[in-house]
Amino acid sequence: MDKKQVPDIVVARLPIYLQTLKMLEKEGEYTTSSKDLGKRIGISAAQIRKDLSHFGEFGKQGTGYSISYLIEQLESILQVNGVWNMALVGVGFLGHAIANFKGFANHGFQIKCVFDADPQKIGSKVGEFTILDSAKMEEIIRSEKIKVAMITVDAIHAQAVAELLVKSGVKAILNYAPVTLNLPKDIRIQYIDPIIELQHMTYYFQD
Amino acid sequence: MDKKQVPDIVVARLPIYLQTLKMLEKEGEYTTSSKDLGKRIGISAAQIRKDLSHFGEFGKQGTGYSISYLIEQLESILQVNGVWNMALVGVGFLGHAIANFKGFANHGFQIKCVFDADPQKIGSKVGEFTILDSAKMEEIIRSEKIKVAMITVDAIHAQAVAELLVKSGVKAILNYAPVTLNLPKDIRIQYIDPIIELQHMTYYFQD
Repeated sequence: MDKKQVPDIVVARLPIYLQTLKMLEKEGEYTTSSKDLGKRIGISAAQIRKDLSHFGEFGKQGTGYSISYLIEQLESILQVNGVWNMALVGVGFLGHAIANFKGFANHGFQIKCVFDADPQKIGSKVGEFTILDSAKMEEIIRSEKIKVAMITVDAIHAQAVAELLVKSGVKAILNYAPVTLNLPKDIRIQYIDPIIELQHMTYYFQD
Repeated sequence: MDKKQVPDIVVARLPIYLQTLKMLEKEGEYTTSSKDLGKRIGISAAQIRKDLSHFGEFGKQGTGYSISYLIEQLESILQVNGVWNMALVGVGFLGHAIANFKGFANHGFQIKCVFDADPQKIGSKVGEFTILDSAKMEEIIRSEKIKVAMITVDAIHAQAVAELLVKSGVKAILNYAPVTLNLPKDIRIQYIDPIIELQHMTYYFQD
């Protein structure tokens, strides 16, 4: 299968399917159907079947999907059946919250190192991590072979941090700074910005 | 203009245009072009012109866009030329970070009240807010006429909190809990989940 041939909008839904399947498994379920899954997620059963069909045949007509099997397959497709080490850059309130977030581990990720440029913060603890000096970022990320990073610095510093991350070998950046990053085309970037999401919703408000 | 006729994917890009225009204005610029804007955002100039054309004529061939005028127009389209009061529910690490975030004010939003169910937290301060008792949520949100809420409670509590918010009159929910909400069709929901975004990126990793 050529990854380029699957529309990105389909790829974007796979993690949501995986999350929902894991929740069903936690609730003690063994099998599910595209109909049940669709109801949970708010997507049509036909859409789910069509999305999954890009990657193979995962269910049987009538009996539906084995939850554990589909989880395994989706984890493999998304390449999260192992664990990706991550760097976190910027320990403000948000960086603090993310460093303390326990939810990464079961989903293919773990924070490996946390950086900040503030001498007051360097050497102190955030969650289980000792805050490292941003000046050593390139050296550490390179030697740890880290490919994934999260940016939680101020907007004004985000581009420079991102460029340094890329120079250090990072291939995917989750950017919480409210600014669009300008990086080489082979670098994956996703944005998390509450204001963008909020403004998207108020558009639809009726007077 | 019928709002229903504009594709949601176009609506989703408007806040990004607005954010970028505001940054240009901050940098002292007065005019911009779809080409410049596109370069900043990583979208083609043609796409930007097409997106904006759903809403009217905002620029002139050759002279481009007046930044302040386009900001004004986009704020009006997105209905963020005023300020929406918001409720924040759940004061863990993430709720703490959001309550302390200063960036909402200039973008059409402000947190008005913060709730938690933990007796240890109720009455104490987070940022500039006194944490209110979740048991009083319906009464307070109703009397404050709050339409927008952010959920930062655990996944297991998110659906019940969301239902109570809707019952209280909330029309738009930004959900940080890693779970899909099942709510009436007229309620807008957006999700913020770092794991979903991270897994979206690792899909594209090459061996």
